[in-house]
Amino acid sequence: MTTAAEEPTPRRRGRPGKDQATVLREAIELFNLQGYDATSMGDLAARLGFTKSALYHHVPSKEHLLQRALDEALDGLSEVVAAAQADTSATALERLRRAIRNSVDLLIDHLPAVTLLLRVRGNSPAELAALKRRRELDAQLAQLVAEAAAEGGIRTDIPPDLISRLLFGMVNSLTEWVRPSGRISPDTIADALTAMAFEGLLAH
Amino acid sequence: MTTAAEEPTPRRRGRPGKDQATVLREAIELFNLQGYDATSMGDLAARLGFTKSALYHHVPSKEHLLQRALDEALDGLSEVVAAAQADTSATALERLRRAIRNSVDLLIDHLPAVTLLLRVRGNSPAELAALKRRRELDAQLAQLVAEAAAEGGIRTDIPPDLISRLLFGMVNSLTEWVRPSGRISPDTIADALTAMAFEGLLAH
Repeated sequence: MTTAAEEPTPRRRGRPGKDQATVLREAIELFNLQGYDATSMGDLAARLGFTKSALYHHVPSKEHLLQRALDEALDGLSEVVAAAQADTSATALERLRRAIRNSVDLLIDHLPAVTLLLRVRGNSPAELAALKRRRELDAQLAQLVAEAAAEGGIRTDIPPDLISRLLFGMVNSLTEWVRPSGRISPDTIADALTAMAFEGLLAH
Repeated sequence: MTTAAEEPTPRRRGRPGKDQATVLREAIELFNLQGYDATSMGDLAARLGFTKSALYHHVPSKEHLLQRALDEALDGLSEVVAAAQADTSATALERLRRAIRNSVDLLIDHLPAVTLLLRVRGNSPAELAALKRRRELDAQLAQLVAEAAAEGGIRTDIPPDLISRLLFGMVNSLTEWVRPSGRISPDTIADALTAMAFEGLLAH
């Protein structure tokens, strides 16, 4: 594979008027549409209206695009979890609630990248590294749940790791139906999910 | 493609000692592992230790296997929803709760087939028909939610269709982590999910 750095005069060749962010966004759309493994750099070039050679001026490889997409999702989720953990003036319940709320916002803001992350199955070093980061985040979130239970903020008749899986399963399932231009606002979705998870559906 | 019916003497050819149920089970495993589109009848024959010709004595086509797998999941889910709807002696809240509880049981009992169903994207007539049946089930479940809200059983500050999506998103997300031999029992999972959804996580 040719990288832009290996080309002697990349800037003199035909550079279509699309920036790296556009290339990345279109790549993620295509990976989600037809699968990362089934997508070639030729497919992406065609979608962008580039020659394959012009595409390689923008990005060194398909794996590089995957890496940047997964980083986008994982960096965002890591910030959400770190911010919740850092707020030591709050109760564990408040930190957990904040982590859930902000995870929903992050997921909707970065829907294509998070969708791609959730489909990763470990078929390459980049995917394995992403799965490892996801497991670390899951462990930190499970820890928040355990702290909220230990503190007496949430029910203790369900094991904390099961609560954590159900909670983040519900958050992650949003990628199956939320659309950026959907008629339900992100705030409404985040409020509803958080209310259902903590207060429950029963009328009071 | 050759169907068993077209073969003049199927029973005289080498029939490996595996029945149709085994062939279907192995096919679903393989479809979930490497994707339906990426799986060939040759792959399945190799997994079963059959020749491709012997496999075609068991099943007419790959699409036929997909159809049977999707029917397994959809027939089960349809029964769950129909049973909940039919219990007119119960309140709408009780019917909804029962539909959720039994959906979890069904999902865990038929985990591979339901997993396959949830991955279907509409790439063939069989997949489009399955998506149509899924949408009908979703509409029936949303109707149960709306009835429970109208009856005053569940909160009315969240739109019923959003509640329905969150509830069944959480149920469907079980396919991401539940394993048949997992250490958490199906009953524990079903109880926990139902309790969290209806009573919420807050300690009382």
